[in-house]
Amino acid sequence: MTTQTPETPLKLSHRWKMASDQPISFLMQQGVENPDVISLAAGLVDPATLPVDISRAAANQMLSDNLHAQEVLQYGTTPGAEKIRSCMLQHLAQLEGCSTEELGIGSDQLIMTTGSQQLLSLVGQILLDPGDICLVAAPTYFVFLGTLAGLGAEAVPVKTDENGMCMEALDEKLEELESAGKLDRVKMIYLVSYYENPSGISLSEERRRRAVELAKKWSKSQRIHILEDAAYRELRYDGPQLPSVWSFDDEQQHVILAQTFSKSFSPGVRVGFGVVPRDLVSPICDRKGNEDFGSANLNQHLLATVFEQSAYYPHVEMLQNSYRKKRDCMLAAANRYFSNLDGVSWVHPHGGLYVWMTLPNEIKTGFQSKLFHQATEEEGVMYVPGELCQAGNVQTVPRNQMRLSFGAQSLEGIEQGMQRLAKAVTAIMQRQ
Amino acid sequence: MTTQTPETPLKLSHRWKMASDQPISFLMQQGVENPDVISLAAGLVDPATLPVDISRAAANQMLSDNLHAQEVLQYGTTPGAEKIRSCMLQHLAQLEGCSTEELGIGSDQLIMTTGSQQLLSLVGQILLDPGDICLVAAPTYFVFLGTLAGLGAEAVPVKTDENGMCMEALDEKLEELESAGKLDRVKMIYLVSYYENPSGISLSEERRRRAVELAKKWSKSQRIHILEDAAYRELRYDGPQLPSVWSFDDEQQHVILAQTFSKSFSPGVRVGFGVVPRDLVSPICDRKGNEDFGSANLNQHLLATVFEQSAYYPHVEMLQNSYRKKRDCMLAAANRYFSNLDGVSWVHPHGGLYVWMTLPNEIKTGFQSKLFHQATEEEGVMYVPGELCQAGNVQTVPRNQMRLSFGAQSLEGIEQGMQRLAKAVTAIMQRQ
Repeated sequence: MTTQTPETPLKLSHRWKMASDQPISFLMQQGVENPDVISLAAGLVDPATLPVDISRAAANQMLSDNLHAQEVLQYGTTPGAEKIRSCMLQHLAQLEGCSTEELGIGSDQLIMTTGSQQLLSLVGQILLDPGDICLVAAPTYFVFLGTLAGLGAEAVPVKTDENGMCMEALDEKLEELESAGKLDRVKMIYLVSYYENPSGISLSEERRRRAVELAKKWSKSQRIHILEDAAYRELRYDGPQLPSVWSFDDEQQHVILAQTFSKSFSPGVRVGFGVVPRDLVSPICDRKGNEDFGSANLNQHLLATVFEQSAYYPHVEMLQNSYRKKRDCMLAAANRYFSNLDGVSWVHPHGGLYVWMTLPNEIKTGFQSKLFHQATEEEGVMYVPGELCQAGNVQTVPRNQMRLSFGAQSLEGIEQGMQRLAKAVTAIMQRQ
Repeated sequence: MTTQTPETPLKLSHRWKMASDQPISFLMQQGVENPDVISLAAGLVDPATLPVDISRAAANQMLSDNLHAQEVLQYGTTPGAEKIRSCMLQHLAQLEGCSTEELGIGSDQLIMTTGSQQLLSLVGQILLDPGDICLVAAPTYFVFLGTLAGLGAEAVPVKTDENGMCMEALDEKLEELESAGKLDRVKMIYLVSYYENPSGISLSEERRRRAVELAKKWSKSQRIHILEDAAYRELRYDGPQLPSVWSFDDEQQHVILAQTFSKSFSPGVRVGFGVVPRDLVSPICDRKGNEDFGSANLNQHLLATVFEQSAYYPHVEMLQNSYRKKRDCMLAAANRYFSNLDGVSWVHPHGGLYVWMTLPNEIKTGFQSKLFHQATEEEGVMYVPGELCQAGNVQTVPRNQMRLSFGAQSLEGIEQGMQRLAKAVTAIMQRQ
């Protein structure tokens, strides 16, 4: 036995204490430990449609020209090279369906980040003090709820229907917060505007316009920002091609737009960018300077080379066709295996990677629920419990929902996973 | 003229208000705006010795195998893939001159980061509350001083000589802080242990051992960590091959070791890793989960492939030979142009990228000084003012020093830059 000096206690910062363990870690661990389980939980993209050849060709070209190679292997700058941001500005114009001039901004309002998650985190850090409020849809992206918790901010849910966050409910909630003397703590409205993770729902065009109006209306003592997370924007399979919430912000003061290539190209390349009001550029860059003084220069150049080689948009089109089939497969399987179960319903998403399913009220879906145990241990299928995606009082949020991913599974996996899940749900319903 | 609604005031977080604009941004901007100026300021690495062919070969191999390519283009995990961390553990053993078993840790104590800067930032965030104290060398790495300021922490300087931070002075400073009732605010000692940026000085072996002893001795109410920044470790040109401070921490409780490939391979690839006490792994990963849930997977695999192809260590050896010539060139030029100037002295570094020069007391070197103006505007040469690298009272810190970089300049550039700088210094000395 070795003797050991007595340990002095580890003392972590208050900042740390606010950060909770992200449930995503638990899910990933579950996935690793149970390789036979069919995961309808993982938010991974489809490995089969990752841009292998395109990336190799781009890497080759970029690293074959000695001067170019030296540039990409050197330090970049904190917001990313001007050349890269110009390329992203053109991409943004393409997404918005207009010319770069019509965008009305320069590339100096673009900031390159490590995925869009880093932008979400940076924006949270510069805008939110502990106790500040961010309004969110119900349900919403659970990783961002963790980010808000890590900042000590309060996520206040707003009623949401099949057209996204209800603007009347938002207006009322803001009025309620004002009456409670809390309007000066409201700093942000978070909107996953396209095919939201987890619900698959998009904000309707009319509500996009209205969201900007409401942000302006309630910016009484301080500006209220909309943080628009457009992660799934390019994974559109049918339905209207919606303009961004950002495009309705004529004065470009209220909306921060987060874009990423994690879904439309490759999450392993980990490149995203933010489009931000002019007076937020410096604060965000200062903060990013402290954190990493710039994301990987190589990866930003790789993306720019992919655009140069005109390989990006054809790839996105291929992805849309491939994921559309998977969505259709999951919806058909839902129809096949769940339509005879009373009180079960689901959203038909026009894009993204998820189907959101609601079970009868009494069937709970959480990690500790009978259903989660039945699904993972008995039937060998995993999902994301819907309650993880709900802000607000844990006692009153809906606990009978599930996020089902069709991104990473094969068509066979989706079919079989849905069949297994229906068996698990049926078993629990019969036991009630 | 367009009418504009009156702007509601932008309100940023308190957290943001602590973050100051990093002087590195000013220097970079100066460099961009004055292309004719010879920069002895930029901390860039030499573009000519960047691993262009090695990176292309590795990217090609990794992206030619379809399964491997799919793995690297997919999401990684927050701490980095197990396979990558195992590879890094072997690298660490190589650096420490022992077997992986002799290291006494598993790969689960390694965390992959975006450069080592991200680790410095993450560690600061989980350990430091506003008002907490971090002891630093005088001078020390100025970017980290900005990181500390951004956390609202206090950087307390400790007397430093040609063997690094003086351990007697550290002991006395800690005693002084205890007497002042502030020992419970001391959370960290920051040590750039090899060829410190900016001074070029390494901590002697005896002081490394002593630093760990002192961290233990003064861990009275809470653990005091040593954050060892080994960024320049592999850029060794002569002198002893020193074991890390981390290697003296037998119980692996006190030292956090930050390693990076930015200097020894490529800053554009932006890969670093941390070796951390077991009970800090989760707090750091939780925080990183909030910030970006993992650095670029592609880049970590690229590095691992470079190791697999046995291309890494020969590259480092080539770098050492190339930078050694540059260092010799700068020292010879210093000797040639400065040795006849009274009161001018400089450090002879055994590695790293910098020569630290001290001028007579009355010659100030700051951005607002006559010398900085003379150097940049009249002679066309730029350096980093030494005062940026000094913590503590701005009125009492030395203001007559310069950091001179030999990394990115050609031999001719170094020679000519030093000649220009000597002319500028001579001009100011004559005007005194």
